[in-house]
Amino acid sequence: MLTFPPALDRLIKLMSGLPGIGRKSATRIALRLLDSTEAECRELARAIVNARERTGRCSVCGGFTESDPCRICSDARRDDTIVCVIERPSDMLALERTGRYGGRYHVLGGLLSPLDGVGPEDLRIDSLVERARSGLSEVILALNPTAEGEATALYVAKMLEPMGVRVSRLASGLPVGGDLDLADELTLGTALEERRDL
Amino acid sequence: MLTFPPALDRLIKLMSGLPGIGRKSATRIALRLLDSTEAECRELARAIVNARERTGRCSVCGGFTESDPCRICSDARRDDTIVCVIERPSDMLALERTGRYGGRYHVLGGLLSPLDGVGPEDLRIDSLVERARSGLSEVILALNPTAEGEATALYVAKMLEPMGVRVSRLASGLPVGGDLDLADELTLGTALEERRDL
Repeated sequence: MLTFPPALDRLIKLMSGLPGIGRKSATRIALRLLDSTEAECRELARAIVNARERTGRCSVCGGFTESDPCRICSDARRDDTIVCVIERPSDMLALERTGRYGGRYHVLGGLLSPLDGVGPEDLRIDSLVERARSGLSEVILALNPTAEGEATALYVAKMLEPMGVRVSRLASGLPVGGDLDLADELTLGTALEERRDL
Repeated sequence: MLTFPPALDRLIKLMSGLPGIGRKSATRIALRLLDSTEAECRELARAIVNARERTGRCSVCGGFTESDPCRICSDARRDDTIVCVIERPSDMLALERTGRYGGRYHVLGGLLSPLDGVGPEDLRIDSLVERARSGLSEVILALNPTAEGEATALYVAKMLEPMGVRVSRLASGLPVGGDLDLADELTLGTALEERRDL
């Protein structure tokens, strides 16, 4: 069976191992790289190695950072007494984009999922309890409104109970700018139950 | 606006420049790479540089190769008198997978497309005419059955006319194992017109 030359074939094989990339897209990407300059290929290669080598985790919040603690954890202008609990570091970007949060973050690193073998000991819950113990006014649970997200939120809330800290979670309801007609019945039902006085 | 740390952000930016990869998939891939070992990242980086540096074009057929001429062009067991004309090097792999062709190849490097500014001088037509001049029994045009493919096939056939070589093209018709009911009307019409006696 004819294949591409070894070096090209190797690149296609490695590329197809990346998430969301099948053999066809890997081939398309590899052929595009062959058409790029050597300098561009070196740049991408360097970026891969640099990202892996330089990016670490913040010892306070668990987010991605090149220096420890991260920019947000070391920003003196942010409110030290509110911590927003998120599943993944990228959730931090989504929340920062809102421009409506000025507190700190805490990355759990996943959600409880007994079927996938993810238990409390796999998440950064102990360090969250530690942070709450040192004195917080509020912990906001910003986890996905899914079964796993809800279960994790309930578990974390229970762990925080002895600390006497206020625990809140993000509101569920209609997406702003969305169409009532297009909302699924669970979302609409939640929006109805959690209605607010005007 | 919060972004990922610089090195990670840079990787995501470069990755989103690859074909078929948007910002979301680039982020997903970059985060997966952060979770890989440094050795794995170095391996991918090396594969990118190696593929670009080592892969060249065969001076005879125009296909990808690490040595010139390529494996197929230097394989003495293949029929020297038949040349199959293809658009891209990857078409060679598709044809070889059939196991039903034993001749040589010639990569055009594209299809005529006046609207995209691709003219005959951008394709490897001159070298094909040269090969035909040196004595071939048949040239098989294996171009896509699209408007551009047909136009290119007609043009190439005309260029080869003075050489007196037999010029054929791949059959169009129903895909083998396909459903007549699902074939589009153009394919079915062609299959009808080009019907063969049993």
